[in-house]
Amino acid sequence: MLGVVLHAPGDVRTEELAMPVVIEPTDAIIRVTATCICGSDLWPYRGIEAVRGPQRMGHEYIGVVETVGDAVTLVKPGDHVVGSFVASDNTCEICRAGYQSRCVHQVMMGSVGTQAQYARIPLADGTLVPMPGQPPADLVPSLLAASDVLGTGWFAAAAAGAGPDKTVAVVGDGAVGLLGVLAAAQLGAERIIVMSRHADRQELARRFGATDIVEERGDEGVARVRELTGGLGVHSTIEAVGTQESMDQAIRATRPGGHVGFVGVSHDVSLDGLELFFSSVHLHGGPAPVRRFLPELIRLIWDREIDPGAVFDLTLPLADAAEGYRAMDERRATKVLLTTD
Amino acid sequence: MLGVVLHAPGDVRTEELAMPVVIEPTDAIIRVTATCICGSDLWPYRGIEAVRGPQRMGHEYIGVVETVGDAVTLVKPGDHVVGSFVASDNTCEICRAGYQSRCVHQVMMGSVGTQAQYARIPLADGTLVPMPGQPPADLVPSLLAASDVLGTGWFAAAAAGAGPDKTVAVVGDGAVGLLGVLAAAQLGAERIIVMSRHADRQELARRFGATDIVEERGDEGVARVRELTGGLGVHSTIEAVGTQESMDQAIRATRPGGHVGFVGVSHDVSLDGLELFFSSVHLHGGPAPVRRFLPELIRLIWDREIDPGAVFDLTLPLADAAEGYRAMDERRATKVLLTTD
Repeated sequence: MLGVVLHAPGDVRTEELAMPVVIEPTDAIIRVTATCICGSDLWPYRGIEAVRGPQRMGHEYIGVVETVGDAVTLVKPGDHVVGSFVASDNTCEICRAGYQSRCVHQVMMGSVGTQAQYARIPLADGTLVPMPGQPPADLVPSLLAASDVLGTGWFAAAAAGAGPDKTVAVVGDGAVGLLGVLAAAQLGAERIIVMSRHADRQELARRFGATDIVEERGDEGVARVRELTGGLGVHSTIEAVGTQESMDQAIRATRPGGHVGFVGVSHDVSLDGLELFFSSVHLHGGPAPVRRFLPELIRLIWDREIDPGAVFDLTLPLADAAEGYRAMDERRATKVLLTTD
Repeated sequence: MLGVVLHAPGDVRTEELAMPVVIEPTDAIIRVTATCICGSDLWPYRGIEAVRGPQRMGHEYIGVVETVGDAVTLVKPGDHVVGSFVASDNTCEICRAGYQSRCVHQVMMGSVGTQAQYARIPLADGTLVPMPGQPPADLVPSLLAASDVLGTGWFAAAAAGAGPDKTVAVVGDGAVGLLGVLAAAQLGAERIIVMSRHADRQELARRFGATDIVEERGDEGVARVRELTGGLGVHSTIEAVGTQESMDQAIRATRPGGHVGFVGVSHDVSLDGLELFFSSVHLHGGPAPVRRFLPELIRLIWDREIDPGAVFDLTLPLADAAEGYRAMDERRATKVLLTTD
C-alpha cells in the first residue's frame, strides 16, 4: 500500500509500505477513503519540530472497516467510520469525563500514520464512530474534517465558553480557527471577530458566521478588539495558532472573567504568571477530545446543517502528498485533502 | 489616628497619620474595628516586592461607617460593614459578571491602607456590605477573614470546581489555603488533600474538613497525590502560594480536564505553554472577587455555620504591628489580627 513518510525537513515522500495488521485484539484495520494534511504536520516538515528519522505522517482519516481484532464489538467490517486523531478506550474515568484525548490508554494517531491507503486503528471500539451508511461523495470532506480540525475548533469554542450573548474573538485563520468560527456560530455566539489578513480566509470566515474582521496583529490587534467591545475585551477567545504572539494576543483580548480556549500546539510559548493572574481569564485547552463531539458532528454534517469541508481548498492524490505539503507550507492552500484510490 | 507604614524592607512602623476625609462623593469613611496582616504584605516587607518609599499597609478590614459622601445611598453612618480588599462599583459589566476585583473603576485597598484606625473606602455602595447589626465579639475574627482570606479561599475553591464527588488538593497551608479547605468542604467536596508540613496547620486543616495530608513537596508531592487518586490526579486544585514550585505542583497534581484555581499572587512564575497544553487542565485565578461572595459568607458566619476566624493565631494592638509582621515573617504566626482601640 502507499503511505506518506517524512525523511527530513522539506523531504516528504509517498512510498510503498507494508500493509498494517491487527496487533492487539482491540485493533481494527481500515481502508482509508480520505485523509489530509494538518497545520501541525508542518512543524516537523519545516524543521521546527525535530524529525526523528523517517516518520509516518498523518492523523486524520475516514474509512471503511476491513478487519477487526477479537475484542472489537462496536464496529464491524464494512462500517463507514470517522475516528479521532487520538485513539482512546472511551471507558476510563478520563474518557468518561469527556477528555478522550487524554485517555489513560491514549495512542496518538500521528504515531500510526493515516496518510496512507490503510491504517491500524488502536482501541477501535472507543475511537471509531460509524456513520449512518456510505457517505455521499460531497460529504466526504466535511466528515474528514470532523476527525480533527472541526472537532478541534469545536472544542476550542466550547472551552472558550462561546454561546448566546457572547462576543467571541478568533486568533488564527487556518482551518482550525475558521472551524472555530463555525462552531461558535453553531453554539449561538452573538458576535464573532476574526483576526485575519487573508481575503480568501476572511470570506470563508464570514460564510461560517464571522461578523467582524480585524486585520491588525499583536498589541494593535488587541487594541482594535477592545475598541470593538467597549474597552472590555471579548467574553471568549479561540486561540488556534500556538505561538507566543497568538497566546499573548488571545489572553489580552479577553475580558476579566472571560474564557480563552487554546488549541494551537504550543511552540516556545511561556506565559508570565503575574500577567495571567491579573488577566483574570479562564484558560483551557490542549489536544481536543474530538471523540466527545464526533456523534453530534457527524449528525450535523449528515443532515447538511454545517459544511466544514469548505476549508479544503486543494485535493490531490496520495501520490502527490509532497505537493500538498508544499502548497500548505507556502500558504497556497489552507488545507489539503488526499484521495487514496 | 494611628496607621501602619512600611519604610523599607523589615522596617514597618505604627505612626500618627492624618484622618482620612471624603474625597469623592462615592466615598465613605469608616472607623476600622479590626484589621490584619496578609501573607501578601510580606512580599514588600521581605523586599521581594519593591518598597516605593514609605507606603501605607493593609487591605483587610471591618468597621463602622462614620461619614458618607453625597452619592452614597446603600450604607449609612452607624452601619457595621465588611468590605472587599478591592473597591468596586458593583454595577459595571465586569462586576455584574461576578468579577468585582477587576471592576472598571477598581481601587486596590492596599493603596489606601486599612491597617489604621480609620479608612477611606472608595465606591462605598459597591464595596461595603452591611452586617445584620453589631457583631458579637467572638465573630469579629471570622467577619474580618471574609474581607480577603476567606473570600479568596472561597474563590479558589469555586475556580477549582470543588464540589460533590470531587477530590480536591490544596497547595499552600497559609490562611488562604486553609480557608480553601473550609470552602471546598462547604461546597461539598468528597475528599480534600492538603499539602502541609506544619503540625499546627495540619490540625486546623483537618478541623476545616481536610481528609488527607501530604507532607512531600515538588515532584514527590505530585507523585503522592497521584498515588492517592488512582494515578489520575485530583479533579480540583487550589493553589495559594504564588511561586513557580507551587504552580507547577498544582498543575501536575491535577488530572486532564480538571481545574486549578490559583490565588497566590504570582512571583517570578513562568508557565511552559507545551506543558500547560498537554496538562489539559482548566486554569483560572487572579485577585479574588470577594464582593461576589460577601453576602453569603457573612450569613454563614452570622449563623455560626463556619468559623474561618480560627486562622488567626495571634492578636496584637495596632501599635504593635511591627511584632505582628515579624511573627508572620518568622512563621511564628499564621495570621495576625490587629485591634484598633
